Amino acid sequence: MDNNHKIRIGITQGDTNGVGYEVILKAFEDPAMFDLCTPIVYGSAKVASYHRKSLNLNTNFTAIGSASEAAPGRLNIVNVLEGETKVELSKPTAEAGMAAYKALEWAVKDAKEGLFDALVTAPINKNTIQNEGFHFSGHTEYLEERLGEGQKSLMILMKGDLRVALVTNHLSIAQIPAAITKERIKEKAEILNRSLKQDFGKGRPRIAVLALNPHAGDNGLLGTEEQEIIRPAIDELNAGGIYCFGPYAADGFFGSERIAQFDAILAMYHDQGLAPFKALCMEEGVNYTAGLPVVRTSPAHGTAYDIAGKGIASPESFRQALYSAIDIFRTRQADEYARRNPVRKQPAHSREDNERAPKNTEEKE
Amino acid sequence: MDNNHKIRIGITQGDTNGVGYEVILKAFEDPAMFDLCTPIVYGSAKVASYHRKSLNLNTNFTAIGSASEAAPGRLNIVNVLEGETKVELSKPTAEAGMAAYKALEWAVKDAKEGLFDALVTAPINKNTIQNEGFHFSGHTEYLEERLGEGQKSLMILMKGDLRVALVTNHLSIAQIPAAITKERIKEKAEILNRSLKQDFGKGRPRIAVLALNPHAGDNGLLGTEEQEIIRPAIDELNAGGIYCFGPYAADGFFGSERIAQFDAILAMYHDQGLAPFKALCMEEGVNYTAGLPVVRTSPAHGTAYDIAGKGIASPESFRQALYSAIDIFRTRQADEYARRNPVRKQPAHSREDNERAPKNTEEKE
Repeated sequence: MDNNHKIRIGITQGDTNGVGYEVILKAFEDPAMFDLCTPIVYGSAKVASYHRKSLNLNTNFTAIGSASEAAPGRLNIVNVLEGETKVELSKPTAEAGMAAYKALEWAVKDAKEGLFDALVTAPINKNTIQNEGFHFSGHTEYLEERLGEGQKSLMILMKGDLRVALVTNHLSIAQIPAAITKERIKEKAEILNRSLKQDFGKGRPRIAVLALNPHAGDNGLLGTEEQEIIRPAIDELNAGGIYCFGPYAADGFFGSERIAQFDAILAMYHDQGLAPFKALCMEEGVNYTAGLPVVRTSPAHGTAYDIAGKGIASPESFRQALYSAIDIFRTRQADEYARRNPVRKQPAHSREDNERAPKNTEEKE
Repeated sequence: MDNNHKIRIGITQGDTNGVGYEVILKAFEDPAMFDLCTPIVYGSAKVASYHRKSLNLNTNFTAIGSASEAAPGRLNIVNVLEGETKVELSKPTAEAGMAAYKALEWAVKDAKEGLFDALVTAPINKNTIQNEGFHFSGHTEYLEERLGEGQKSLMILMKGDLRVALVTNHLSIAQIPAAITKERIKEKAEILNRSLKQDFGKGRPRIAVLALNPHAGDNGLLGTEEQEIIRPAIDELNAGGIYCFGPYAADGFFGSERIAQFDAILAMYHDQGLAPFKALCMEEGVNYTAGLPVVRTSPAHGTAYDIAGKGIASPESFRQALYSAIDIFRTRQADEYARRNPVRKQPAHSREDNERAPKNTEEKE
């Protein structure tokens, strides 16, 4: 935390040919944002200037040499790029991929040194970022290796109290059935449960587990994974004190009122969880990587090459990513504080619970 | 059409222990509904009375012996049940299943005789309805055999201009990849295209085809069906004059603005299409069986045993099913009329297109 006890948010610039700088600059157009946090962008003042000028935006920023120089009340940019970086809007270029990579590497180093409190990442292009140091299918896998300290991470898509996590992620449909195991379901549910407690302050989280097959397998007519794998996993999780319910047929679940009864939904595969989530929350969705020592969020959208440079990208999802990072960091702090300072049972005489120990009665005796 | 040229809608009572009669009676509480159509319920005046009384509803109805006696301006009920039928709210009973079956059989017979114009079915219980005459996984398959005249049908879930159809339906996830063939995609797209023209009046329908795998297979990294099956099918469909686009990654599609550019979405499997559809349109969704000689719609919800008899079932989806059946029947009539009476090319002199053949110029010459 900096001197003003404001949360320092590390922000990686992402792909420099997409809408990353547009949403960053638009989010910090509002001076009220600096009351909430001190931003430290890992990127390039030159590239930021290019986007600022071409989009006709007014957000000011200050170039700094290191995150330790970051000051509150302004948009700090740590220059992570040497020499010139050519911006080619909407194009997948190796240069933009390298720029995204260097920002991530620098931010990861600073995160380990505690130079900021939470990380928000602007979108990368998963193809152009690949290099000797980056051979991951996305941010989540990269950050798990670099910052996970051996912990497994879990992607949570969220908006307000709607949170969706996945048992399997980037697999073809043909690969899914073999990947649905009791162990994997339990592992993901455990990370999710821990995150709901530590990161979202839920005392006794309730998790809805979706079925794999349509109609939840229809008593075995449409698949047996529900009976043989998912239900036993749910039973074992409950026996271990993790409150899981289901398996629920996925098609009706997101449209039903039951959704409000749960703190999170554990879907079996990518499109099952993300298609209905994005149908409901495209604009304001936030991607949160649970399970890491460092809090990391990102907007739910990608580089959006199709609208890069047009000035029409909405900063709403990025703004929500900032808010969520701040909220989760605060909740974690409160959780850690509570662990270090357990509430002692108060002696009876200090209670104001007159019904249980009425003073009058005691005095009479 | 009856004497008043009002559309006659056949309505099957569905499972008598669910919310079927509740939504039927609530929908016809409003006298304005009788200006739109003449309803003919295939069911039982006794069972209708039971629900009417226990739900404290005011809708009146008239028992008739045959659909030919149906009169406009009232809720006609053809008695299809002999003797008593015990109503056991919320329970899956053989009696309620048989009641649902008898209503369907009678309605199918009358449909063939042209005693009504369009069919709206209240929800059945797919387990209790099974018997010697009914061994189908649902209404759609049953009606295809009984009324299809050899035509293949296609389920379309719809609300307003959002229409979703499926390439595969009741399959386990493990069975899906083998069922995704070029032939099946083309067959379903052809039925969908024909329906969009005849039933929805789209002159040149535009169909969005979803990918099978997440991220549309990510150039083969997450599955090859997009490259080997779906894209070739789309190409062949376009070559044949059916305007298909895609394959689009399913997760972002329903939340994107692109959705408005298409007349229908063809999803590869059940939960991929229905989970986002129901997330967006649970309350007002309508199920339409395209491809049959008879127009048939139904509400998107089921028997809803959990709320049967409580008086809280919303009739909105059933009401929308009635409206849709009426609209589709009218559009089909107009389409048939246009086919029988093709517009002849008008001679040039009757045109009012002055710019193309300005009179002044002609007069001067």
